[in-house]
Amino acid sequence: MIRVVHYGLGPIGVGVARLIASRKDMQIVGAIDIDPQKVGRDFAELLGRSEPLGVSISGDAQRVLTTSGAQIVVLTTSSSLKRITGQIRQIVECGSSVISTCEELSYPPAGNADRVADLDALAKKHGVAIYGTGVNPGYVMDALPLMLTVPCAEVKRIRVERVVDAGKRRLPLQQKVGAGMTRPQFQQKVDDGSVRHVGLRESATMIANSLGWTLSQYTEQIEPVMAEREVVTPYLTVKPGEVAGVHQIGTGFVDGQALVTLDIAMYVGAQEAHDTIWIEGTPNVQTTIIGGLHGDVATAAIVVNSIPRILSAPPGLWTPNDLPIPHWRRP
Amino acid sequence: MIRVVHYGLGPIGVGVARLIASRKDMQIVGAIDIDPQKVGRDFAELLGRSEPLGVSISGDAQRVLTTSGAQIVVLTTSSSLKRITGQIRQIVECGSSVISTCEELSYPPAGNADRVADLDALAKKHGVAIYGTGVNPGYVMDALPLMLTVPCAEVKRIRVERVVDAGKRRLPLQQKVGAGMTRPQFQQKVDDGSVRHVGLRESATMIANSLGWTLSQYTEQIEPVMAEREVVTPYLTVKPGEVAGVHQIGTGFVDGQALVTLDIAMYVGAQEAHDTIWIEGTPNVQTTIIGGLHGDVATAAIVVNSIPRILSAPPGLWTPNDLPIPHWRRP
Repeated sequence: MIRVVHYGLGPIGVGVARLIASRKDMQIVGAIDIDPQKVGRDFAELLGRSEPLGVSISGDAQRVLTTSGAQIVVLTTSSSLKRITGQIRQIVECGSSVISTCEELSYPPAGNADRVADLDALAKKHGVAIYGTGVNPGYVMDALPLMLTVPCAEVKRIRVERVVDAGKRRLPLQQKVGAGMTRPQFQQKVDDGSVRHVGLRESATMIANSLGWTLSQYTEQIEPVMAEREVVTPYLTVKPGEVAGVHQIGTGFVDGQALVTLDIAMYVGAQEAHDTIWIEGTPNVQTTIIGGLHGDVATAAIVVNSIPRILSAPPGLWTPNDLPIPHWRRP
Repeated sequence: MIRVVHYGLGPIGVGVARLIASRKDMQIVGAIDIDPQKVGRDFAELLGRSEPLGVSISGDAQRVLTTSGAQIVVLTTSSSLKRITGQIRQIVECGSSVISTCEELSYPPAGNADRVADLDALAKKHGVAIYGTGVNPGYVMDALPLMLTVPCAEVKRIRVERVVDAGKRRLPLQQKVGAGMTRPQFQQKVDDGSVRHVGLRESATMIANSLGWTLSQYTEQIEPVMAEREVVTPYLTVKPGEVAGVHQIGTGFVDGQALVTLDIAMYVGAQEAHDTIWIEGTPNVQTTIIGGLHGDVATAAIVVNSIPRILSAPPGLWTPNDLPIPHWRRP
């Protein structure tokens, strides 16, 4: 029985916890959030379970971490590694391993080398592991493409294309991609950084470093996808001419050549959602996940399925490229 | 510079060696084969390289293994673990790690538990690693499907379908699949075991064990694929009504349910070759490698790309499910 604490109870944290609550081999032993609306309630309420879990949501992280005996803490509080570094330190110093959906933790060396070295040393000192993952970054735009280079004698270029129907996702995501905005509103949100998928740089860096390519340059462009017809989702309606979502392309250059292209379009009303990976090389490998992976469902599963690998990893801070292939396992 | 010895210089061994000879980070330091036609020649001749390698093919394995200083030996002599056990012992006792395309070594626990435990202990004693891999078993019907369960909250069933155009493969493979035989000739070859793809049981066992499923039964059926029109390959011609190749299905049962189905059809004239993996679960994941992987090319690449992972693995006998994801890396 793996003892798990959940730290950060937004939609992703709740999604992971729902899956863990359904497994016989894992036990939720604590739940931490700062939201006064949540603190004090039984965690089961938030998960929509009729039976109480006997775990009261707490705002006192230190107390939960020191008394729960957690082997692992699922940390889902922020996309910013800088913002969660204090939380990671706190967890590690209490003796628990950390798995986080923080996008910047999935492949952190890009610009965070000192921070990463500190956390790695701290994890080793306390005998625990730190790991960041998720569907993207963490899987479909980095670890899976790497896995698809295995049968290649040579790799010349990698391109991943995701088309996600944001209309099937949670409201915050529909808002995050700008659905329903005007073009100027969208541009303003792009300029202030609030419409942006975090993680393309991390995925591009993980691919390049793993393949022995040194990125000489990395660029990212963000454009709106405009609705051509009215789109109605369970949460909102987008009229023709309004923004339906975002199209974002991260490009990694090696010696001036664009060798890694990560192209993600997330918009309401997207037809034929898919994840397609092209490895240009010897041989070419092209694979498509029909329908694409559902970001929320897949991220929760990837976190849960990675836990056994993290608990059996040596102490330290690891990336998806360091540990054996995770996989689903019957509880 | 990784020092490599090649042991077994048939088509697969030569394919691996060609790729290694082309890499700047690996060096061929020995070549072993029992064929008197090959012994004494410079290995470059066999590889079709104009420049000599300065490596003479030797029939004296012991001498090559003790004098070459190889870090790893590529062992491509047989599909039978029983038949290569002596060769593995010899290599390990000389202090080198082993990577082999022996299908029964890719996931050997099926029926070979004692043999595997002995080899694992021997590897640990000598501080080296033993590893079996290839495209199938080793990748497309086991490790890759496992990797595709990562985003699943639940897995109910796995099916992999390979359709291989044997007309694009080497002559021994075209013969191995029965191309050009009559139906009775084919059946005779099936009965004496010479028409059979080795490895479906290993892949099914690797998938089941990894997912926590206990196989209660495993069955395998082999049928001919009959040519409906004349097929001409670079090596042979198959007339309508003759056997074009083999269709083989391995099925793993858990509690009486067929949960793992591995379906491979290898025949000359196959249209729309592909590798398709279906994960039935939450969510369903379906992915297709368009064109399918070319067995010979992919196996050579998988072996070469796995070498760095093996050399950095702890001592012991490992499977594709034990080590970090291998991937191509620029030499």
